[in-house]
Amino acid sequence: MHKIPVGKDIMGANEETAAENRFFFDTHGIYVINLMSAPGAGKTSLLEATLRQIKDDYRVGVIEGDLVTTIDADRISAMGVPSYQITTGSVCHLDAQMVHNSLHGFDVTQFDLLVIENVGNLVCPAEFSLGEDLRVMVFSTVEGAEKPKKYPLMFHEADAVILNKMDLLPHSGVSFDELVRNVEDVNPNAPIFPVSCRTGDGVDVWVDWLRGIINPRSLSSAASAE
Amino acid sequence: MHKIPVGKDIMGANEETAAENRFFFDTHGIYVINLMSAPGAGKTSLLEATLRQIKDDYRVGVIEGDLVTTIDADRISAMGVPSYQITTGSVCHLDAQMVHNSLHGFDVTQFDLLVIENVGNLVCPAEFSLGEDLRVMVFSTVEGAEKPKKYPLMFHEADAVILNKMDLLPHSGVSFDELVRNVEDVNPNAPIFPVSCRTGDGVDVWVDWLRGIINPRSLSSAASAE
Repeated sequence: MHKIPVGKDIMGANEETAAENRFFFDTHGIYVINLMSAPGAGKTSLLEATLRQIKDDYRVGVIEGDLVTTIDADRISAMGVPSYQITTGSVCHLDAQMVHNSLHGFDVTQFDLLVIENVGNLVCPAEFSLGEDLRVMVFSTVEGAEKPKKYPLMFHEADAVILNKMDLLPHSGVSFDELVRNVEDVNPNAPIFPVSCRTGDGVDVWVDWLRGIINPRSLSSAASAE
Repeated sequence: MHKIPVGKDIMGANEETAAENRFFFDTHGIYVINLMSAPGAGKTSLLEATLRQIKDDYRVGVIEGDLVTTIDADRISAMGVPSYQITTGSVCHLDAQMVHNSLHGFDVTQFDLLVIENVGNLVCPAEFSLGEDLRVMVFSTVEGAEKPKKYPLMFHEADAVILNKMDLLPHSGVSFDELVRNVEDVNPNAPIFPVSCRTGDGVDVWVDWLRGIINPRSLSSAASAE
């Protein structure tokens, strides 16, 4: 009986901290992406493919969320992009307070664009706002066409849905049309980007769309600085 | 500051209920498997492939855990195997109380073998004992060789590790040897079964092992009934 109020308190406190994060990011003109997916869907691979194309055009930094290890942050740092690792221990998602705490150790005011890669989990990350501007989810097509029905929240909350591992799709028996239909049933508004981070197919289309989202914001902050 | 004691209380309460579940299962001679994985790794496909081989030799039932939908329970029922769906809403794992509650609506005393398919999540299900005898995890090889390092708890807790989607592995660029090495680093004791639920390759080896685990228990309960 006492579980519900505890849950409400936690979520309410998270929303407050997320609003503080958002105010901080807005004040410093930082566009923030929350990148979410199940484990192994290809968040870090998408991030690498995206950074290769945009890292010379934006001042970009990355916060990596993982239970343990610095494997992902090391991959990003190896590209010459500043990164900061949050290790959550046993917590299966990032929350706004973890992001807030990381800002004490990672000066994000040097960036135009901050990507926060969440812990790999198709459920809980979607429940915790971090103060981001854009929620992007990556889904591995070979996980099955019915997954948007079974795990609807993240699909519903996403501002963009990346369908990765398109190169494996022909070998998998998964129906692309059924998958897209199920994504659209849960979220009719988010654009869907089929990509293969491995071959690079489709990454251009996604990056072009992303530039269109970030640019007006960057231009307006550049204009207001004049 | 007050988060830790709440967490401890929840885990302690879960352990108590799990012990009650275990006592109930033991009393009725039911062997119980907790089947865990990330979303889309192939739990239900493995279950279908396994049930096809054993459903005439054991009295077997299935409890399905999902956030929403009865898709998985419907798949199992279509095989003529009794199934019961637990829908967790937004909760990313099953706990012992959910399983306890389901026993009021699902008479498991008719079974020798009960398989509980957990919610798809590579993190939290491993923290909650349900009162099971055997923890089996399924991992999709194409999720990447480094995942046992990044999500160690479930690999560590598993009594058997099924490496699924072996048919996709040659197309994925993932190193099987590195993956196996990483599984063994986290858990040197659990047997590892490479399978393809899609082609059926390797399923026999897993099922033979499983029969060896279940049989002594069934035989002993048959003997004590004489």
